[in-house]
Amino acid sequence: MSSIPNVLAERYATAPMQAVWSPAGKVILEREFWIAVMKAQAELGLDIPEQDISAYEKVKDQVDIDSIMQRERITRHDVKARIEEFCELAGCEHIHKGMTSRDLTENVEQLQIHRALAVIADKAAATLSAMARRAGQWQQLYISARTHNVAAQTTTFGKRIAMFGGELLDALDDLEGIMASYPARGLKGAVGTQLDQIALFDGDMAKVAKLESRIISHLGISRTADNVGQIYPRSMDLRIVSSLASLTAAPSSFCKTLRLMAGHELAGEGFAEGQVGSSAMPHKMNARSCERVNGFHVLLKGYLTMAGSLSGDQWNEGDVSCSVVRRVMLADAFFAADGLFETFLTILEQMEVYPDVIAGENERYLPFLTTTTFLMEAVKSGAGREVAHEAIKEHAVATLRALRAGEIKENDLLSRLAGDSRLGIGQDRLDELLAAAETRAGAAESQVDAFSEAVSRIEKKYPGAHGYKPGAIL
Amino acid sequence: MSSIPNVLAERYATAPMQAVWSPAGKVILEREFWIAVMKAQAELGLDIPEQDISAYEKVKDQVDIDSIMQRERITRHDVKARIEEFCELAGCEHIHKGMTSRDLTENVEQLQIHRALAVIADKAAATLSAMARRAGQWQQLYISARTHNVAAQTTTFGKRIAMFGGELLDALDDLEGIMASYPARGLKGAVGTQLDQIALFDGDMAKVAKLESRIISHLGISRTADNVGQIYPRSMDLRIVSSLASLTAAPSSFCKTLRLMAGHELAGEGFAEGQVGSSAMPHKMNARSCERVNGFHVLLKGYLTMAGSLSGDQWNEGDVSCSVVRRVMLADAFFAADGLFETFLTILEQMEVYPDVIAGENERYLPFLTTTTFLMEAVKSGAGREVAHEAIKEHAVATLRALRAGEIKENDLLSRLAGDSRLGIGQDRLDELLAAAETRAGAAESQVDAFSEAVSRIEKKYPGAHGYKPGAIL
Amino acid sequence: MSSIPNVLAERYATAPMQAVWSPAGKVILEREFWIAVMKAQAELGLDIPEQDISAYEKVKDQVDIDSIMQRERITRHDVKARIEEFCELAGCEHIHKGMTSRDLTENVEQLQIHRALAVIADKAAATLSAMARRAGQWQQLYISARTHNVAAQTTTFGKRIAMFGGELLDALDDLEGIMASYPARGLKGAVGTQLDQIALFDGDMAKVAKLESRIISHLGISRTADNVGQIYPRSMDLRIVSSLASLTAAPSSFCKTLRLMAGHELAGEGFAEGQVGSSAMPHKMNARSCERVNGFHVLLKGYLTMAGSLSGDQWNEGDVSCSVVRRVMLADAFFAADGLFETFLTILEQMEVYPDVIAGENERYLPFLTTTTFLMEAVKSGAGREVAHEAIKEHAVATLRALRAGEIKENDLLSRLAGDSRLGIGQDRLDELLAAAETRAGAAESQVDAFSEAVSRIEKKYPGAHGYKPGAIL
Amino acid sequence: MSSIPNVLAERYATAPMQAVWSPAGKVILEREFWIAVMKAQAELGLDIPEQDISAYEKVKDQVDIDSIMQRERITRHDVKARIEEFCELAGCEHIHKGMTSRDLTENVEQLQIHRALAVIADKAAATLSAMARRAGQWQQLYISARTHNVAAQTTTFGKRIAMFGGELLDALDDLEGIMASYPARGLKGAVGTQLDQIALFDGDMAKVAKLESRIISHLGISRTADNVGQIYPRSMDLRIVSSLASLTAAPSSFCKTLRLMAGHELAGEGFAEGQVGSSAMPHKMNARSCERVNGFHVLLKGYLTMAGSLSGDQWNEGDVSCSVVRRVMLADAFFAADGLFETFLTILEQMEVYPDVIAGENERYLPFLTTTTFLMEAVKSGAGREVAHEAIKEHAVATLRALRAGEIKENDLLSRLAGDSRLGIGQDRLDELLAAAETRAGAAESQVDAFSEAVSRIEKKYPGAHGYKPGAIL
Repeated sequence: MSSIPNVLAERYATAPMQAVWSPAGKVILEREFWIAVMKAQAELGLDIPEQDISAYEKVKDQVDIDSIMQRERITRHDVKARIEEFCELAGCEHIHKGMTSRDLTENVEQLQIHRALAVIADKAAATLSAMARRAGQWQQLYISARTHNVAAQTTTFGKRIAMFGGELLDALDDLEGIMASYPARGLKGAVGTQLDQIALFDGDMAKVAKLESRIISHLGISRTADNVGQIYPRSMDLRIVSSLASLTAAPSSFCKTLRLMAGHELAGEGFAEGQVGSSAMPHKMNARSCERVNGFHVLLKGYLTMAGSLSGDQWNEGDVSCSVVRRVMLADAFFAADGLFETFLTILEQMEVYPDVIAGENERYLPFLTTTTFLMEAVKSGAGREVAHEAIKEHAVATLRALRAGEIKENDLLSRLAGDSRLGIGQDRLDELLAAAETRAGAAESQVDAFSEAVSRIEKKYPGAHGYKPGAIL
Repeated sequence: MSSIPNVLAERYATAPMQAVWSPAGKVILEREFWIAVMKAQAELGLDIPEQDISAYEKVKDQVDIDSIMQRERITRHDVKARIEEFCELAGCEHIHKGMTSRDLTENVEQLQIHRALAVIADKAAATLSAMARRAGQWQQLYISARTHNVAAQTTTFGKRIAMFGGELLDALDDLEGIMASYPARGLKGAVGTQLDQIALFDGDMAKVAKLESRIISHLGISRTADNVGQIYPRSMDLRIVSSLASLTAAPSSFCKTLRLMAGHELAGEGFAEGQVGSSAMPHKMNARSCERVNGFHVLLKGYLTMAGSLSGDQWNEGDVSCSVVRRVMLADAFFAADGLFETFLTILEQMEVYPDVIAGENERYLPFLTTTTFLMEAVKSGAGREVAHEAIKEHAVATLRALRAGEIKENDLLSRLAGDSRLGIGQDRLDELLAAAETRAGAAESQVDAFSEAVSRIEKKYPGAHGYKPGAIL
Repeated sequence: MSSIPNVLAERYATAPMQAVWSPAGKVILEREFWIAVMKAQAELGLDIPEQDISAYEKVKDQVDIDSIMQRERITRHDVKARIEEFCELAGCEHIHKGMTSRDLTENVEQLQIHRALAVIADKAAATLSAMARRAGQWQQLYISARTHNVAAQTTTFGKRIAMFGGELLDALDDLEGIMASYPARGLKGAVGTQLDQIALFDGDMAKVAKLESRIISHLGISRTADNVGQIYPRSMDLRIVSSLASLTAAPSSFCKTLRLMAGHELAGEGFAEGQVGSSAMPHKMNARSCERVNGFHVLLKGYLTMAGSLSGDQWNEGDVSCSVVRRVMLADAFFAADGLFETFLTILEQMEVYPDVIAGENERYLPFLTTTTFLMEAVKSGAGREVAHEAIKEHAVATLRALRAGEIKENDLLSRLAGDSRLGIGQDRLDELLAAAETRAGAAESQVDAFSEAVSRIEKKYPGAHGYKPGAIL
Repeated sequence: MSSIPNVLAERYATAPMQAVWSPAGKVILEREFWIAVMKAQAELGLDIPEQDISAYEKVKDQVDIDSIMQRERITRHDVKARIEEFCELAGCEHIHKGMTSRDLTENVEQLQIHRALAVIADKAAATLSAMARRAGQWQQLYISARTHNVAAQTTTFGKRIAMFGGELLDALDDLEGIMASYPARGLKGAVGTQLDQIALFDGDMAKVAKLESRIISHLGISRTADNVGQIYPRSMDLRIVSSLASLTAAPSSFCKTLRLMAGHELAGEGFAEGQVGSSAMPHKMNARSCERVNGFHVLLKGYLTMAGSLSGDQWNEGDVSCSVVRRVMLADAFFAADGLFETFLTILEQMEVYPDVIAGENERYLPFLTTTTFLMEAVKSGAGREVAHEAIKEHAVATLRALRAGEIKENDLLSRLAGDSRLGIGQDRLDELLAAAETRAGAAESQVDAFSEAVSRIEKKYPGAHGYKPGAIL
């Protein structure tokens, strides 16, 4: 009956993320935490024999999930079951002194979150690196930028990638801020007053403070919260899940845009060696990985609703109505984010563009996008501004109608303008102006440079980012 | 690496629900669907040898998930992998004729949904049965009803249960409506036009209609949608998940109320034989199962956000950006709903009330709740209405202040009133009126009867409801 | 300071919906409710002079919101303020007898919901009528159906509209079910036991039942809930808001698809007489109304989260933590739904298609979509199946590559096939087969008929649906 | 028809927040932005006469919303309508040069957000100040801390307030981080490439950079985004709304806890002078403001879902499907947050505690909470640890049962223990130990000090925080 796997973990998440959240992995994290507490307690004067601590250390990796589960069915208390298992393996009873269950579980779950965030930050950095590479590659590939899904002005594909990259940069910056200031709950006892640890050390609050600071440093978290209850505030979970949703927004938007581009055959997410499209329709190359990235983002927004529900709902010093929610939500949100980045990195690696289709689109729309230039030229040539404007508008509208009605196949606006004596511009000059417009995209090129520089700084901070290769995806 | 189980399935859901959603279970459902299609196609004239159909039938329960997964890693197409596996096992290739992947997967997923709904409807019926039993048991247990969490008027605990029961009754009625009108997508082909089945039967649309109606009847679903695309509309999933959230709202509210009652020691969710509370605090009996029910409801509302996101987002004839979402959301929402009902049924079975604490609360508040009666009596005795009202108000406020300030331990409003000549009512008469008020709760009793009658009708429709015993929960 | 209008009401909603939710409108609904209660109470024996009831009736439309607000600032009780205002206007005090605030507000808010649902149902019916008209108009306009945003098979634009129409039909059916079974809370008193009305009628529960049934019939709602507390269960609001999100999913998906089609210049949402596109880009016709419809759907899904939050969170007999939420959520959800339908009806009225662009797209993709037909022909002509399949695949892939690379401008697959002796099919026959495929879309045509018939039934039920004209939108 | 006000603005938000979002206020912000652009353009060399800029400045506060609306009904373009109105008032046409609508609206909306965040940060600081005052006042008021809504250990009410205060401190810190790094979109043109401004300055990109930096400094925002499209990324809105939900979580949890405490009569939210409770039930003081705070938080979580929906859904360089959503969501989220803080500040000002009820609760539970101390004393007195433990457990369980069954009214555990020879502790010593336990709450006192110190730092940063008085609330 336990044959139902976690779909997100199994199909999409990578090994480092699975390791953080696997049941066995969590048991080991807890045991390491208990050992760290014991060591610190012993150093601060509690009578815990060194050889007993060693006994625990020797068995800490012997994890038998079924055995623990069997104990839980009797005690109906998950932490109690894990205490008993560990003590029986070690042959002594020194763990969990002065601790309540939450002293263990809150801190270990925060450790999981903190480590999972680090995995995600690495992935985001690798993603930025790959985006910068692509942005550079296509820095001068001119495309028709679209607003409202309609061609608007010329841009470059590199700039379009840098645009989504800029969003990701800011989101990563935000995530780093959250990670840096993330406080561990610490050893605060049943209701947050540290009563039991203080009692254990005969009222010596300085020792308890030392104990806590050692534990925090074991966790690798920079600070501890001053004031908590049984639990750390659940708005912290909201901040985490929200930051995942924010961080994955840029990849999601990029993938949505790539799905649109694929529909126009301007670009595609690429195919792995050996992959085949539909046997019936050889031209059919579905943007299935892009669609999946969008799906992951939908999942994250559902987990965000769950995290929102838990926040602002603390009763007194805390409850466990959040327990089943956090068991599901936290791991699954991180699996989804991890799968999203892995999929997106694959897309960035395999995507391709079809420059001739792009050129065709530009050709169709460019004359419309250049009418303001023609207007200025006409005025310079002596035409009245309003007369010229009216003339251009007439021709532009007529051209568009003819194109839509199939009366013409190509945009012939220029020849219409050339033939209009009100404007006084020859075909050659018009062609010249149009040709210049083809590669005019404002600051697009320097914006790509700015993006690349920012990513260089990221690559220095995250040594594995540059050249990271995603694993094979389903 | 596949060692990360689905927490909801493993820890909380029951066997019938696990069976609907298990990977192996789904493979079998798909194979049964293919066989049903083959049989119908053969009867309608396609050349499919009977012994080949038998060959498929013989191997349909031989499910090797790993083998299928290995195939998928090559084809990158999950349905293709499962076709190959089944055909190799059977030794022939007759399944999936004229079908696209979605002809298989949409219908089978709808079948899973439909069966899962039936499991949930059974559970809801069993829950109503248990609630009616408890409502009847405590039909005359008078308690202080609260609004704004403050005592307001007298009610009975039976009526309070019937109140939440009434909500569940309406939600089940709604669910039944959804199940009854739930349309299967049917064999509609790649874009919903049935092109391939029509081609397979040489343009004979009547045969295709017959084929489809046989398939629908195989699924046990009453009707097929006329107009769909590649997929059935995702607003149907929204309706399903929303109905689960609606249906579980009453249990969730009941559990929240029981957590409040436990805080006042009026009632508790009970303890299993052998369960122990905290070793430090022998009086501590946490409403952990009630909290868990509330947690499940939070999960469901997160899945509702996911379902909402998919609705209204169909591109053309459909996409698979919903695929990863539905893989997770549908199964997990049903696991959560199933676990919620199972937990709630356990609470209903084990809950207990503390009549003396209840009596103490009633005693404290009853005099306040009865002041309007005293007023009428004073008027009958000749006092002026406004004079009497002012007198009672003075005493009530003074009593309350004295109680809060600890000057008195018990509500002594009556003796204050008895001593006030403006009212002219003696202590005996006041005691008499108060005693009568103790068991006066309007239509509460008959409302419980009305609830019980409605549940009787439900029990007739759902034979397993009455006396259903939940399994042991963690 | 009260100069901040409700944006949804002011910019998007129509007059009938504004009337349901306007502050003044609600005051009148409440007064009518009080009058109905008084009349029924008088008929059932309470001593309320007829001329006093008339006094109330005379002033019921004199609504001075500022005056009521001023009273509320003193009493801090909104219902109390409205009672005082109405009584002072009438010059007597007979309303609200035996009632608590919730007896008034719950029922009146349910009345608002019920009336608002009726407005929405009418709009949905009008929308179906307009969709059926368009589906019929374009029943034989062949387009390339897309899955994964890539051309897949031929369909008709009529069928595409019928596809979304089918989704709306089912959702309207669901809404009608909800409206039909919607129970009013009724006069249930402070905690749901009817204590005060029963006291008012000296314990005569039959009279109270009669009173309640008259009130329900005043509301125009078919039944009353048996068991409630201070409030009706908030899962009912969840069901309402969820049904609005479901009902608007089809318009939202249609609009998303139309935005995609506009991007390909296949169709557009049309322009009002006199509307101009961007002065710079005369070809730019943004699908702004379609985008707005998608925006409304996003709003509705946010209100759905709010409704979800309220459900399953009832404390005892009820609280008012839901009050501020419902003040905002209910009205705004209905305004959004109303604005959505009004905008969508405008789109349906003004939308246009560009048949020549459509023909161009079909031309580009049709040869690919017809390869299975060519295969069968080759086999009939004596070619080996596998040889023919391989030959076709080679040519199809080469053609696609040449198209994408810009080496050819038009799909020349047929001439490639005609030149391949392995297949043995001449150019003429290939042209003939392709021509036949152009208008082959399976059951698309009859599916449109089925949709139209279903809509005819709707039009009979909703007399205003056929020919409904949306107002001018911003 | 414009008589439907924004409920959140009108009933709950304060004047500074209304000013940010009022339609007239926005018009003025836009005009100021245009003037700032004109001035900078003139300084950088564009030919815009000084007196014309003055002409605009003179009329900038003459806002006629109706006139603008009338223009919009013709142009169907809101920005165009506002350009025309402003130019007609000024009598010249120099605004909006080289700008697209989004250059105006994105920046002005970001300005609104930035200013609204500042209002909220001020409120949060004032809230912390009020919480610190209350925490100090009740630093030594011992209460029974609860976990799972059941008494667990002793804490102080001051520490409980500091616990929620600690959550708010962290959330404010997070908000400040977001405000500090918030980038304005800047003058980026139609698709983000600054094409038009660059053209306006004849390709001089340095001038365009200068122009932009002046504009950013006009906005009071510290930096501009390098890479955007038509719009700034919508994940930024997600971050804003999420931070509001996070920031208000602590007040929401506090209010939920206060509702629970009010149910036990331990504390109340207080009553304004002159406010009356229900006339029927003089003891009834509803925690209506606390309930409202919880309601506001539910609203914010719905707006969070909307913000989530917009993120990750950008098509190409951007669309306006987000337009109607942001019109509603942003203002309403800020109104809700503002109303929440204002209501919560009122609660903090008016709340009261009932020390004698608190003492009664402590008395009931304290003996249970002190059993570990008794155990240690027995062992010191020579009793065997296991024997003593068993003895204490027996008595504790028996006492609890007797209390629940009403056999005893007060917790008599001590006299039971005193009479048990297995323990050997006299009644006097037990009383002594119990008395000591009454005021033993671990580090609670120093934790309150730590909170107060942190708040002192906040008060220095926000000069208006200390002593801020909320306005009268409804």
